[in-house]
Amino acid sequence: MNDILEIKYDGRPCYNIVLENDFSRLAYFLDKTGKKYQRICIVSDTNVAALYIDDVHEALRDCAGEITQFVFQAGEASKNLNVVEDLYENLIKAHFDRKDLLVALGGGVVGDLTGFAAATYLRGIDFIQMPTSLLSMVDSSIGGKTGVDFRAFKNMVGAFYMPRLVYMNLSVLKSLPAEQFRSGMGEVIKHGLIADRDYFDFLIRDREKICAFDPEAIFHVVKRSCEIKGAVVEEDPKEQGIRATLNFGHTIGHAVEKLSKFSLFHGQCVAVGSVAASYLSMKKGYLSEDDYKQIRKTFEDYGLPVSVDSSRYQAAEILKTTKSDKKMQAGRIKFILLEQIGKAVINTSLTDTDLLEGINEILR
Amino acid sequence: MNDILEIKYDGRPCYNIVLENDFSRLAYFLDKTGKKYQRICIVSDTNVAALYIDDVHEALRDCAGEITQFVFQAGEASKNLNVVEDLYENLIKAHFDRKDLLVALGGGVVGDLTGFAAATYLRGIDFIQMPTSLLSMVDSSIGGKTGVDFRAFKNMVGAFYMPRLVYMNLSVLKSLPAEQFRSGMGEVIKHGLIADRDYFDFLIRDREKICAFDPEAIFHVVKRSCEIKGAVVEEDPKEQGIRATLNFGHTIGHAVEKLSKFSLFHGQCVAVGSVAASYLSMKKGYLSEDDYKQIRKTFEDYGLPVSVDSSRYQAAEILKTTKSDKKMQAGRIKFILLEQIGKAVINTSLTDTDLLEGINEILR
Repeated sequence: MNDILEIKYDGRPCYNIVLENDFSRLAYFLDKTGKKYQRICIVSDTNVAALYIDDVHEALRDCAGEITQFVFQAGEASKNLNVVEDLYENLIKAHFDRKDLLVALGGGVVGDLTGFAAATYLRGIDFIQMPTSLLSMVDSSIGGKTGVDFRAFKNMVGAFYMPRLVYMNLSVLKSLPAEQFRSGMGEVIKHGLIADRDYFDFLIRDREKICAFDPEAIFHVVKRSCEIKGAVVEEDPKEQGIRATLNFGHTIGHAVEKLSKFSLFHGQCVAVGSVAASYLSMKKGYLSEDDYKQIRKTFEDYGLPVSVDSSRYQAAEILKTTKSDKKMQAGRIKFILLEQIGKAVINTSLTDTDLLEGINEILR
Repeated sequence: MNDILEIKYDGRPCYNIVLENDFSRLAYFLDKTGKKYQRICIVSDTNVAALYIDDVHEALRDCAGEITQFVFQAGEASKNLNVVEDLYENLIKAHFDRKDLLVALGGGVVGDLTGFAAATYLRGIDFIQMPTSLLSMVDSSIGGKTGVDFRAFKNMVGAFYMPRLVYMNLSVLKSLPAEQFRSGMGEVIKHGLIADRDYFDFLIRDREKICAFDPEAIFHVVKRSCEIKGAVVEEDPKEQGIRATLNFGHTIGHAVEKLSKFSLFHGQCVAVGSVAASYLSMKKGYLSEDDYKQIRKTFEDYGLPVSVDSSRYQAAEILKTTKSDKKMQAGRIKFILLEQIGKAVINTSLTDTDLLEGINEILR
């Protein structure tokens, strides 16, 4: 199974997302972009590099005169400007110019950081995304959001910058730690909830196959999620409208993530936040109680949390953190609700009382 | 005298360059961009802020709920990532979000640094350029190049990012130190040389008026240079072709600038580099000896250097530095020659011997 999805930007074809089961056609698809590169730098983290950097290096062998590697310590803590500066220095020393290429091989941290370095080195050089985690395949590698943390602030510094190609070798998911796979499923379930009821039903029905890494089921998951995310970012690349619906579950989810000091995985927080948002969607009369229960159960069945410990998290604190989120506009929260399963809407009229009700639902 | 030039990007109207003689219509033109801002941060350096920040603050009074200022130490040494980080921190503390605005009030350093911060804060917020030096009016404020130095490397980090508006109060040029005015004239003369023989002739003919800050003459200089630069960047925003002709005089000029450890002004180095490039244009049979002498004389008449001290600069060193410039492509220098006065061409066939001949011409 393999497939190619074309992503447009500003109405014009911009880059392809290629789904494959090994690295063998990487050189072919890179060549198809129509550009020739003198130098390539493969950027990765210590975890992913140990498993795949040699294979990717080998697959790119004939694509450039010189191939170098930049590997940084795995973990969220590396996603900062200092590591970007180390990468700049590395590129300068290797005489990288505007005609050269960066390859982001890894999960979201690698993709976001490499994309930001590509966006800003010499005012922009080409890069390609090679996501290796489920979360980065279905979410962060698509849509051109790049960025790093700045001091204590998450994703504060970044740029919208499009890759030349997104190449996914789905077979690498087998080496992904179970926790990280489940975390990716948090975003996958979200995609069903905001955009496609049939997809949501499929995730319920074929859960065992998906969790057993059945190739056909996994292929369908990645493909359908890429289609959904791709369609949204095509319509609204700079997050001025509909792209905000991708933030379903993220408003309260981000607050929980922050208060957990990032000890919880992103997808776990999205799950918890999605439950709160679904609860509010029910309270606002959009969802039935059955819908709500089904949503909760689906996250649970995929091994994702649907609540957090009330002895550790206080409702008022979650509310305050939610409201300090950067997605606030002129003092009002842009909250995403479900009008029905498969259809998200933007709501800017929720009161603190509403939000507290949603937050209390996830405190157990 | 006032005027508005519209600059397109990707074939669509992108921003206006407004030429005025005071700050009184700033609010009007900002309003005309069609966006409303909650917060504005005026970014400036210590020199310019002392003269104009209060006036600009006052002129913007009704344009936003909250207006803040960020002033950094004047000088090239401030154009680095550390100052950008201080600005980020400042914006975060003042709760700036994606709907807010930065105003770059100052010369090239202020514009480049503020533009880069705007391009990368929260993946991009709006900014306007308010250039206060001749050099920034006719050159750096137009075309969306933003960036800062990284460690020892000039302009290594940056982004292409368009302002929402460029507002110029030409009357501020009267407060510009004479050396800086002459430096700006280096780029102005270059504009005549690469694109418009009549303009070059005007610069020769009306030199006294221009140097006496005759309002009409100055208005014509800024307007015509903005038109020339604007037309080039419209055609080639990302410097993939014709925009390179703006680098006339810069290839050797940058090397001299670097070797002078930036003790020479940018426009002075452009003048020296332009003389070398004009000499090579003569040697290649494009320019007559009279043309070449006229070009030399024009720079001299405007108080710009046409040579550097051979006891301080060695030809081989200038050549080496020239070739390490980031505009090298696959080992070949992209050199700009004049086919005639008013018409630049890109040449990639100059040998080291050619270059040394040009360099020796400017060593006295």
